[in-house]
Amino acid sequence: MSDRTTIGVGMVGYAFMGRVHSQAWRSVGAFFDLPLAPRMAVLAGRSKERTEAAAAQLGWADVETDWRELVKRDDVQIVDICTPGDSHAEIAIAALQAGKHVICEKPLANTVAEAEAMVAAAAAAQGRSMVAFNYRRVPAIALARRFVEEGRIGEIRHVRAQYLQDWIVDPEFPLVWRLQKDKAGSGALGDIGAHIVDAAQFITGQNVLGVSALTETFIKERPLATESAGLGATGSAARGEVTVDDAALFIGRMSGGAVASFEATRFANGRKNAMRIELNGSLGSLAFDFEAMNELWFSTGGGGFERILVTEPDHPYVGAWWPPGHGLGYEHTFTHEIKDFLEAVATGADPSPSFADGLRVQRVLEAVERSAADGSRYTNVED
Amino acid sequence: MSDRTTIGVGMVGYAFMGRVHSQAWRSVGAFFDLPLAPRMAVLAGRSKERTEAAAAQLGWADVETDWRELVKRDDVQIVDICTPGDSHAEIAIAALQAGKHVICEKPLANTVAEAEAMVAAAAAAQGRSMVAFNYRRVPAIALARRFVEEGRIGEIRHVRAQYLQDWIVDPEFPLVWRLQKDKAGSGALGDIGAHIVDAAQFITGQNVLGVSALTETFIKERPLATESAGLGATGSAARGEVTVDDAALFIGRMSGGAVASFEATRFANGRKNAMRIELNGSLGSLAFDFEAMNELWFSTGGGGFERILVTEPDHPYVGAWWPPGHGLGYEHTFTHEIKDFLEAVATGADPSPSFADGLRVQRVLEAVERSAADGSRYTNVED
Amino acid sequence: MSDRTTIGVGMVGYAFMGRVHSQAWRSVGAFFDLPLAPRMAVLAGRSKERTEAAAAQLGWADVETDWRELVKRDDVQIVDICTPGDSHAEIAIAALQAGKHVICEKPLANTVAEAEAMVAAAAAAQGRSMVAFNYRRVPAIALARRFVEEGRIGEIRHVRAQYLQDWIVDPEFPLVWRLQKDKAGSGALGDIGAHIVDAAQFITGQNVLGVSALTETFIKERPLATESAGLGATGSAARGEVTVDDAALFIGRMSGGAVASFEATRFANGRKNAMRIELNGSLGSLAFDFEAMNELWFSTGGGGFERILVTEPDHPYVGAWWPPGHGLGYEHTFTHEIKDFLEAVATGADPSPSFADGLRVQRVLEAVERSAADGSRYTNVED
Amino acid sequence: MSDRTTIGVGMVGYAFMGRVHSQAWRSVGAFFDLPLAPRMAVLAGRSKERTEAAAAQLGWADVETDWRELVKRDDVQIVDICTPGDSHAEIAIAALQAGKHVICEKPLANTVAEAEAMVAAAAAAQGRSMVAFNYRRVPAIALARRFVEEGRIGEIRHVRAQYLQDWIVDPEFPLVWRLQKDKAGSGALGDIGAHIVDAAQFITGQNVLGVSALTETFIKERPLATESAGLGATGSAARGEVTVDDAALFIGRMSGGAVASFEATRFANGRKNAMRIELNGSLGSLAFDFEAMNELWFSTGGGGFERILVTEPDHPYVGAWWPPGHGLGYEHTFTHEIKDFLEAVATGADPSPSFADGLRVQRVLEAVERSAADGSRYTNVED
Repeated sequence: MSDRTTIGVGMVGYAFMGRVHSQAWRSVGAFFDLPLAPRMAVLAGRSKERTEAAAAQLGWADVETDWRELVKRDDVQIVDICTPGDSHAEIAIAALQAGKHVICEKPLANTVAEAEAMVAAAAAAQGRSMVAFNYRRVPAIALARRFVEEGRIGEIRHVRAQYLQDWIVDPEFPLVWRLQKDKAGSGALGDIGAHIVDAAQFITGQNVLGVSALTETFIKERPLATESAGLGATGSAARGEVTVDDAALFIGRMSGGAVASFEATRFANGRKNAMRIELNGSLGSLAFDFEAMNELWFSTGGGGFERILVTEPDHPYVGAWWPPGHGLGYEHTFTHEIKDFLEAVATGADPSPSFADGLRVQRVLEAVERSAADGSRYTNVED
Repeated sequence: MSDRTTIGVGMVGYAFMGRVHSQAWRSVGAFFDLPLAPRMAVLAGRSKERTEAAAAQLGWADVETDWRELVKRDDVQIVDICTPGDSHAEIAIAALQAGKHVICEKPLANTVAEAEAMVAAAAAAQGRSMVAFNYRRVPAIALARRFVEEGRIGEIRHVRAQYLQDWIVDPEFPLVWRLQKDKAGSGALGDIGAHIVDAAQFITGQNVLGVSALTETFIKERPLATESAGLGATGSAARGEVTVDDAALFIGRMSGGAVASFEATRFANGRKNAMRIELNGSLGSLAFDFEAMNELWFSTGGGGFERILVTEPDHPYVGAWWPPGHGLGYEHTFTHEIKDFLEAVATGADPSPSFADGLRVQRVLEAVERSAADGSRYTNVED
Repeated sequence: MSDRTTIGVGMVGYAFMGRVHSQAWRSVGAFFDLPLAPRMAVLAGRSKERTEAAAAQLGWADVETDWRELVKRDDVQIVDICTPGDSHAEIAIAALQAGKHVICEKPLANTVAEAEAMVAAAAAAQGRSMVAFNYRRVPAIALARRFVEEGRIGEIRHVRAQYLQDWIVDPEFPLVWRLQKDKAGSGALGDIGAHIVDAAQFITGQNVLGVSALTETFIKERPLATESAGLGATGSAARGEVTVDDAALFIGRMSGGAVASFEATRFANGRKNAMRIELNGSLGSLAFDFEAMNELWFSTGGGGFERILVTEPDHPYVGAWWPPGHGLGYEHTFTHEIKDFLEAVATGADPSPSFADGLRVQRVLEAVERSAADGSRYTNVED
Repeated sequence: MSDRTTIGVGMVGYAFMGRVHSQAWRSVGAFFDLPLAPRMAVLAGRSKERTEAAAAQLGWADVETDWRELVKRDDVQIVDICTPGDSHAEIAIAALQAGKHVICEKPLANTVAEAEAMVAAAAAAQGRSMVAFNYRRVPAIALARRFVEEGRIGEIRHVRAQYLQDWIVDPEFPLVWRLQKDKAGSGALGDIGAHIVDAAQFITGQNVLGVSALTETFIKERPLATESAGLGATGSAARGEVTVDDAALFIGRMSGGAVASFEATRFANGRKNAMRIELNGSLGSLAFDFEAMNELWFSTGGGGFERILVTEPDHPYVGAWWPPGHGLGYEHTFTHEIKDFLEAVATGADPSPSFADGLRVQRVLEAVERSAADGSRYTNVED
């Protein structure tokens, strides 16, 4: 490691996403032969006490209580944005203008306008920028992409994508920030629908051209959270309005001629993180469910569907880890993402997914919202 | 059997559906304690030679080459209609007017107008009438209905239904009658989409209120079939236009507040008969896939999904068959249907699904077609 | 059907096995193009009243209350033995000596000596004889045999077979005939262990050479059954000794060099009819579980295992039935068995499995019992 | 972290096991609230160059080329032994005598005599000692143990354990150290059979009392490895004898009355790391397969088997990680192991599994070898 150039990382936010990003920064060098050795330099958070505790636990050398200070620091070359979507644009643009490389959690922004500003800033900047659609780095999904590129399922006819969770089924679950439009932009749509739109576009290599959509908020009011909190937040007696969708369903057309069906919900009781995608092509099919993330199902169209255990050395990312059959977990998708990002930074290549990819997803989400508001009418995704 | 009154059955058509209905008529009395003993009296088909051969193989005592003759016969009290959809209305109405009981293959008719006429005829007739949505008689689906009725999954939030087949993926598969609008009414929509609409309405006890739809015909022209033939038909050099949908996708709302997603396609490579439905409720979830037809998946919303092997004596229909773990097959759904129909005939009760249920499905299909033609706009199902 | 020669069938016994055999005799001609048309001539049972009721329900034309009378009748050319194992030898030998063809339920007999006498009678007779190991006729198992014959999994290294049921887990389940050594010969070993030994030998084409075994009776005493009854028998206050094994485990060697593991139990709580077999070969593997009887799992040794839905037209037996994805059930294994038996009768070919095959299984069971009684010592299967 | 006492760790060996242990030492503090903060002080290996490279990559501060030096160092309080089994006893005893805590890879030793010496040394020492049967720390296995302790499956009747791999199916795979008796002690038996014996004893809380066993070496000679190498080793023209088993099968009895079946093999083509265990009890059953490591299957004996996604906050170890449905991987079993070990070191409690637990497994393996050598005769496990 001593021979490699080290590169300083500053991270903003230390909740769920900050914890998993930290684990990736900490681990990536032990498994991948990297061109740059990341140094976990600074963690930024609003509360000094909490940020220091988080930095100690997660392994960051220093803290800042204002992300603006983090962005200015000379020992930070990479800014990793793990905050809610409402601050993405401001932080990312400032970091890019300060000459930093930026990796930003998804969705890229809460609005198309913000996302466009971020893409413009990225285009004008010297640093690399990436939006963290980590599911692209599930080995099984990367393998699905490889199969499609190799033409193994032929011309794609159907995309069938669902992201099913159930963590707000209880009407007494409180009104956390993810249920407030001003913070989160949208509900299931932006939080998890964004992932399946990105995955569908990534695996197929096609864009969503247009959609017909329907959204629903099953529980209109919830107890106020005692603070803007995570999943474990406890409610209070006062209630507030849920301002985002609980579920979003849309059907549409892809640029290559496929028809597509999408569904994102937090009300699929018993489904914990069922991020699923199935593609049917003229020569075969592929199917994936994140609840069994080490498996990819592949058919060449006869009576069979092959369960591929995606733990073979020649599968994407897998060779760096363990022998066959020794599966990976959720966190490793982030390790792979950081690895790819560091390689892009080192070579100057455009990371995938870029901010432009993030904007493309944002435009689809925006078309979904317009269609849902306009009688589900088929609505083109704008360019 | 000698103590029971026998009842004469006449069947029209002897292709795929006729074969499976025959097996049900032949077997039902050996397993269920019936109020009426069916006698397989007459089979009707156009070609005398072929009809006689079919009758000999399938166990029918006599033949007619004109269904009008069959409908008149005194030894026929039940008319079983196994023809393509374009002749359902005419045969069913004639049979009802002749005082017969009628069981008719699905979809009830090719148009709403025909279906309405059939419902009117049924209302005016003395005989019982049933539309053969056989999937209601899959024990797992009947068990799902029982669970919903018992409130075990609570208030239903999501219906997610798919019917995936792949038998016309090959562009050289010929233009059989199921691909011609004048014979079949529609394509995947009426053939298999009808089943999932009926199953969704049956299990939830709710109606589809409105839909937003999109249909597609991937292969626009196919070789002409050498004759109006079954799945094994061979093509010829001449080509004709495919006039039905290859796939139909629609999203919508149910009368109880659930949102719903439907997809019917014959282009899901590797999916042979994946008639799937998942319900998510406030207390739990249910999931089914006909490719594993003896299983029902049930969750009460924690981290678990229970695979219920629906072969226990107290499961619907199962007690009449074998010990636990000795599964049933496709044909038994028809045996159950015939059993329920005979009981309704004996008691004078209204069979389920009635012609009215069939009309309700037809109205949903019609709304799907209108929405698809009108920019996927949300379209109410008319009453 | 009229062109074919009819052949009269007499069946002895009408309990569980008699019901499923009747359904096969009744149905086989409607699906398979048979050289002989079976006529369900006579059913034999001890109670006249019950036998007549069974005959009426199951479709037999006449009854006898003594199987000796049935065996003598001129309108009976085939004798189908569906009684407990203690009467197999006597009935089968008498039928063969009377010039009849014989199909006999498994296990062939309760002792090796009886089975040897049956094989000798079969060798001396003009009639064909078959032992009804119906699992050979599961399409997925027949397909597994085909794959092995074609060399697709190479040289077989491992056989791993289990037959798991749970119907006597409850200590209050009564002492039915299947739990009495004088009637049933043995417990799980002969009832279900016989099936996996036959399946292993059939699929691999190899014999079990020797075994090391261990048996156990978990519940030593049970309520006496009110009569020698089926699964639904109710118990009484008096108790009797369970004289058969509840579970049998054995490991051994096959004639082709594979090692093998077998387990038969009625105490695998939650497993209803999990008749499972897995083969690992030098080139690939095969796996099957009857609880999902329409599936065969196949690997060529990489990271994948293919779930083959055994419902394609070119799969064994399947072409006679329904389109792909429309699965078969337990009863169809008997329909296939009867079909193969009728073909063997018509052509004079030796049916498979023959009485000699049944004897071979019997010798394995006998070696298991000797090993279990002798400190699990490795025990050769005698020839 | 600064408030906690740090504790120095020295690790011997840096191959597969060393890599995964390093990741656990590096990560554990970020997720668990530990009483002691581990410091990755020293890595020992024979080649200075390679050890330094490994230390740099894996995050160890210093290196030694002789483990005896490592054991003496004052900055090392914990010795982590990741070498082949032939050196375990010597290193562990020296470390314990030097006052260190010891965590040692499994199997504890290559012989019972060595294991006994280690247990004696552990008893006499002040340090804590643990054998690294990491599968005890799979959340699903820990949950299975909890269910058994709570009596949820009742009295255990059956244990059915398999460990299936396929990495030496190819006869040209070279003669690596794991195929040599002097280095590895035994083959599949000690390497993976040890894991299922330990898991069976752990989950049931019962000991294996006696066994009847059979072992086999399918490929007797293999190309010599170019050096004592890992899985990727390439062969040479010269060949050597394989001196360990390729597969071991054994059946036996547990101290609580259950019968048990075990199979360990590296010739199960297509099975990559199928470490499977199923328990059947008087009230229910449990089943696990490591290839789907985040799932535990649970039945209460009706027709259902529940797939529990072991990612809920109240499942063992899981609360420290991610939200439900965001699965863990192979490496986390080691993180959990290290966490439990550090807690035992801090409190002075006996770690689980202790060296005594490791010895108990060793005695079972030794009984297996004696039985296999003695005609599979039932052989008591000695105490």
